[in-house]
Amino acid sequence: MTATFRAGDLVLLYQDSRRHWITRAGEGRFHTHRGYLDLKDIVGMESGVSVKTSLGQSLAVFKPRLSDLVESFDRPTQILYPKDIGYAIYMLGLKNGDSVVEVGTGSGALTAAIAQSVAPDGRVYTYENRNEFLRAAQKNVRKGSISRLVTFRNIDPAEGFLERNADAAVIDLGDPWRLVAPAWEALAGGGVLAAFTPTVNQLEKLADALRKNMFLVLEAVELLVREFKTEAGKVRPESRMIGHTAYVTIARKVASKE
Amino acid sequence: MTATFRAGDLVLLYQDSRRHWITRAGEGRFHTHRGYLDLKDIVGMESGVSVKTSLGQSLAVFKPRLSDLVESFDRPTQILYPKDIGYAIYMLGLKNGDSVVEVGTGSGALTAAIAQSVAPDGRVYTYENRNEFLRAAQKNVRKGSISRLVTFRNIDPAEGFLERNADAAVIDLGDPWRLVAPAWEALAGGGVLAAFTPTVNQLEKLADALRKNMFLVLEAVELLVREFKTEAGKVRPESRMIGHTAYVTIARKVASKE
Amino acid sequence: MTATFRAGDLVLLYQDSRRHWITRAGEGRFHTHRGYLDLKDIVGMESGVSVKTSLGQSLAVFKPRLSDLVESFDRPTQILYPKDIGYAIYMLGLKNGDSVVEVGTGSGALTAAIAQSVAPDGRVYTYENRNEFLRAAQKNVRKGSISRLVTFRNIDPAEGFLERNADAAVIDLGDPWRLVAPAWEALAGGGVLAAFTPTVNQLEKLADALRKNMFLVLEAVELLVREFKTEAGKVRPESRMIGHTAYVTIARKVASKE
Amino acid sequence: MTATFRAGDLVLLYQDSRRHWITRAGEGRFHTHRGYLDLKDIVGMESGVSVKTSLGQSLAVFKPRLSDLVESFDRPTQILYPKDIGYAIYMLGLKNGDSVVEVGTGSGALTAAIAQSVAPDGRVYTYENRNEFLRAAQKNVRKGSISRLVTFRNIDPAEGFLERNADAAVIDLGDPWRLVAPAWEALAGGGVLAAFTPTVNQLEKLADALRKNMFLVLEAVELLVREFKTEAGKVRPESRMIGHTAYVTIARKVASKE
Repeated sequence: MTATFRAGDLVLLYQDSRRHWITRAGEGRFHTHRGYLDLKDIVGMESGVSVKTSLGQSLAVFKPRLSDLVESFDRPTQILYPKDIGYAIYMLGLKNGDSVVEVGTGSGALTAAIAQSVAPDGRVYTYENRNEFLRAAQKNVRKGSISRLVTFRNIDPAEGFLERNADAAVIDLGDPWRLVAPAWEALAGGGVLAAFTPTVNQLEKLADALRKNMFLVLEAVELLVREFKTEAGKVRPESRMIGHTAYVTIARKVASKE
Repeated sequence: MTATFRAGDLVLLYQDSRRHWITRAGEGRFHTHRGYLDLKDIVGMESGVSVKTSLGQSLAVFKPRLSDLVESFDRPTQILYPKDIGYAIYMLGLKNGDSVVEVGTGSGALTAAIAQSVAPDGRVYTYENRNEFLRAAQKNVRKGSISRLVTFRNIDPAEGFLERNADAAVIDLGDPWRLVAPAWEALAGGGVLAAFTPTVNQLEKLADALRKNMFLVLEAVELLVREFKTEAGKVRPESRMIGHTAYVTIARKVASKE
Repeated sequence: MTATFRAGDLVLLYQDSRRHWITRAGEGRFHTHRGYLDLKDIVGMESGVSVKTSLGQSLAVFKPRLSDLVESFDRPTQILYPKDIGYAIYMLGLKNGDSVVEVGTGSGALTAAIAQSVAPDGRVYTYENRNEFLRAAQKNVRKGSISRLVTFRNIDPAEGFLERNADAAVIDLGDPWRLVAPAWEALAGGGVLAAFTPTVNQLEKLADALRKNMFLVLEAVELLVREFKTEAGKVRPESRMIGHTAYVTIARKVASKE
Repeated sequence: MTATFRAGDLVLLYQDSRRHWITRAGEGRFHTHRGYLDLKDIVGMESGVSVKTSLGQSLAVFKPRLSDLVESFDRPTQILYPKDIGYAIYMLGLKNGDSVVEVGTGSGALTAAIAQSVAPDGRVYTYENRNEFLRAAQKNVRKGSISRLVTFRNIDPAEGFLERNADAAVIDLGDPWRLVAPAWEALAGGGVLAAFTPTVNQLEKLADALRKNMFLVLEAVELLVREFKTEAGKVRPESRMIGHTAYVTIARKVASKE
């Protein structure tokens, strides 16, 4: 859909893959290393148009994707990478109308991605007992247009999530095994769980807890992303890459045999 | 949401990570290497319940995720892997209401994933000029509940997509550079394009065509997934893995400077 | 050095990367799926010459490299891969004259590679308490020209290696931590140790034992090798690859502070 | 072999995996961020002993391995990594007595590793037509004890290597295809060639040149090394890693059919 920027709209200013920023159309100036931009000039522009700073640097103005917004999130904690977010969302099978419980909220990156995946009729209930993280996450998630689907809960769900019959549960904190039984209670039969663990020891302990608590572990994987230089005649992977973020475990709730 | 299987519902019968099948609740028998199952017995069951075949083999019955359905698709052509689908969907920034053009449809795996991402108000226009592929894809996509969002077009869009102002374009065929200009025409300003290319030569030629046709190449990546054994005390990556599927290129349409 | 095959010399018959075999020049016939070769015809040939089987299949005859011989070894146990052998040999810093202790011998692949690296004046003392493995290894290693440097010991060195002042120690068995203290005793000051462990749990336990037994752990790594198709215009990684073999740990003996 | 440091011996001072240095025992002081060391104090010490700087920082003193020396080489050009050096040396099948031609010398890292592999009776003939590189390489290689086996040639071998009947040829420069025919001339029948190419385009062009010039391409590979943190209870790959260095191609000379 074609649309033009209105005052207050979020804008991605894109110089290159390392230099790009999120701001809002409308008021004030945006300063780069090479001159500034009057943000009121963006109002009325179409996404994808190229503009020039006061010193002549070209910038493309884009409607930000969710992944652009997430990259700009305040990060009191380690943020998940697109490779892990994209994979988890797809393997959770999220779709419009789904109800999801999440712990912990962290910076809200995954919260926002989940919300976008279950929009417009789904809901995300996200738990974070660290106050400063929760506040940052709320501010972050509000940048997306789907924050109305998100309920933030400033408590530790170890005693139990408040929700029942959730379609999916997501665990992203240091001691995920502690949340396995509460997640089972919160999920509907066959509900899918995704958990992120940086160390192998956490992965091992989590998988063990899942198996002992009526979950079927479908898979535990690690994703690696290699970026490429694609200049004609000089194609090659980048010299440096992210070596590790987290293992992703996918499991499904097995109904109890009453 | 808790729900019980009705006659005609798709069911995932899950024995283990290598042995699982998609069938329908209701009529007939499903035969495994270890006995059969009366499919009418599944009607009324909740997802996640464990059943036994006539020879005592335990199977869990699940509502299939889209990724389960895709795994069961008829494949006249190479199918995309979850790692690539999940990443592309996330980097395309797809959300409810988006309009997407795709070429070629192939087996429809990506078509179904895109449709799920833009539901309930979006649309996918997918082009496939090979008749037998198109028919297989239509049958495959119909397994998902979101096939009403998909328009199949049995033509080659090299002369131009019929759509305009699309939010995203997806190219998955052997000569993607041929579709770059038509994709530009079909996209709204700032629209995002994702393309999949198995060889480095295709990647190089595609990136070149994108740059010469008013696209900004945001990234070209390759994803690797390593599966892990997680049995306590014996944690290790699997001995064999998929070594390569395709390079994923993400680009955005830059508006012409008229 | 140019040399011609004499009767009894080992020969590599090479059809392609999947079909190649080790045999000896001189007597009898070598049968392939596409005809046979009279092995006496190879006597007097130079390495690199192309011959034809009775059915016209071309084969190149080569002097085998050590890696070719190792590929043909009888394997009562899992064999180490070139990526791991090459890396370990280099990081051990092996050179002519070095004295090396090894446990367990396994199929002798690493034994042969070590021997070649310390030739002509070094020595390898290799321990293997499983009789059938030892016999296979002795037969395997004898294929190389450097077997005179190898002393096979059919005992478990948990009570202590018989050697002292070794330049390097290599551990390749399931419970490597058990051999750490004996390896320390066998090594000269600053001696280098390499150990191979398939699981993360073994890696963890080994690293812990090394640190507690006066070793400095220099690194623990995992190597991945991706093979490429290089046909012009169709360059790409192979679709399948080895996902995991073993973690390689390199450590050095720190002298006790008496 | 146990040995003590004499004045003039190279010494590796090792603080941790990021902080370690090569120096010589005997004269002067070595300054670290945490105090200095009197280098004459090292004379008479055994490798592996721990010493303290003037400010109490512990350092282990080790006889450097070749890989330690290489890490300390002056680098007018990109240096090869241990993963690539170790693999190439092993796949070249180098052993005592082999004769090797190399182009270009670069910083001499591979030259030194080859020399160590063919010692004591082999020889390396290394070609480098860039004067400043050659001088740096000569200084670097002289740090190893095997520099007497190395002949440096300050010419471009495009017109032909001066050697014949070499067991192996190594090519490490930007246009390796230019050296394929000269390498063929220099090699004995069945001689092995290894070449390093950073870009996919170089790999493609090289493989093509090899096939057209009577070489059998055995393999083209890319090695990835992942380093691990091995602290008990916190085992995980490092967050960052080297994403790419070079593709390694291994080929063998096929004799002409005169």
